[in-house]
Amino acid sequence: MKLYFSPGACSFVPHTLLETAGEPFEPVLVKLHKGENFSPEYKAINPRSQVPVLVDGDQVITQIVAIVGHLADRFPQCGFIPRDPLARTRMLETLAWMNNTVHPTFTHIFMPQKFADSDAAKAELKAFNTRLYRGHLAELDALVARAQAQGKPYLAGDNFGPLDAYALTLARWGGIAGIDPTAFAATWAFVQRIAALPPVARAIERERLQLNLFKPA
Amino acid sequence: MKLYFSPGACSFVPHTLLETAGEPFEPVLVKLHKGENFSPEYKAINPRSQVPVLVDGDQVITQIVAIVGHLADRFPQCGFIPRDPLARTRMLETLAWMNNTVHPTFTHIFMPQKFADSDAAKAELKAFNTRLYRGHLAELDALVARAQAQGKPYLAGDNFGPLDAYALTLARWGGIAGIDPTAFAATWAFVQRIAALPPVARAIERERLQLNLFKPA
Repeated sequence: MKLYFSPGACSFVPHTLLETAGEPFEPVLVKLHKGENFSPEYKAINPRSQVPVLVDGDQVITQIVAIVGHLADRFPQCGFIPRDPLARTRMLETLAWMNNTVHPTFTHIFMPQKFADSDAAKAELKAFNTRLYRGHLAELDALVARAQAQGKPYLAGDNFGPLDAYALTLARWGGIAGIDPTAFAATWAFVQRIAALPPVARAIERERLQLNLFKPA
Repeated sequence: MKLYFSPGACSFVPHTLLETAGEPFEPVLVKLHKGENFSPEYKAINPRSQVPVLVDGDQVITQIVAIVGHLADRFPQCGFIPRDPLARTRMLETLAWMNNTVHPTFTHIFMPQKFADSDAAKAELKAFNTRLYRGHLAELDALVARAQAQGKPYLAGDNFGPLDAYALTLARWGGIAGIDPTAFAATWAFVQRIAALPPVARAIERERLQLNLFKPA
């Protein structure tokens, strides 16, 4: 298997799952800041120019939700998706929210040029969506605190999975957005614990990630 | 089961699945244009003020991806999600794209106030995202044409499912965005066929939907 990833992007989610599964895979670095995702070579792999892309044999799979499902099938022993139908529904609900709401809100802050042209509109998008993102991180914090109160070691239950890696990613992006991620106490303590898991630590090392990128104004 | 829906919103997707399953359910109309989704009563059901919400016994489920998974579990005879792992991965890939990319692009056109305050920025968001949405509908059209070339009666294969209902919804939204949906020939022919399926026709009738809302300038 081959994973196309970019450091700190949401490709971190499948990256940590592959490290957890422990089967050898080929990580392929795509430098988004150099526009490598718009090269003809990369567009031949993913015409939408996004990471992550998982290549498994002759299958090219895009979209976090689909990649997570595929990896859960391939490595059933890892329990990336809960077996219990209700727990699975709850996990998918949170994964979808992270992926269709929290993640795109950050995109408005980090890459406003994806939504508007003018400098004025881009500045407004950044400011407006930073307020929204702060609210999302508070919602995530409540979710982490609730999982802990229920005695769950991980967000979806007993096993490390996509929600945990996504939570780390979203909290880390807070720092890039100018939001102090340590202000979300439950999340930040959780992120430290997740980052210390050996497979996650290997992904962090390969991507050379610094967890707290917040710079006080 | 109870489905909270708003006419023409993406709640149309689970609405058609419930009609297809054929088990009685209670459809509950939420008037988004009257702000009913922000009432204390509705926020007690879904604090994010969105539709759809599926209530099944004591479970309150949000997010299309999670609701689709739940309905696929409840009605395995309907084949809403393909059994074959690869076909399922492909279905999830397209569902995620519709849900995290095409759908939010339309939201920028229909409800730009969700992303910016000023009239100038909102006008720019509408224009910029209408261009993007036109591209997404072209991509959807290629996807529909490919499924037909492969002899698939529905987008995910042999059974009517969430991709088909979402495709109808996204094409219909084109008209609202000022894009002539009939220009996407494969999609528009497909939409007519889907709309004529008796369960889909029942959902269209309950929501009082007109399929083509395009008004030439």
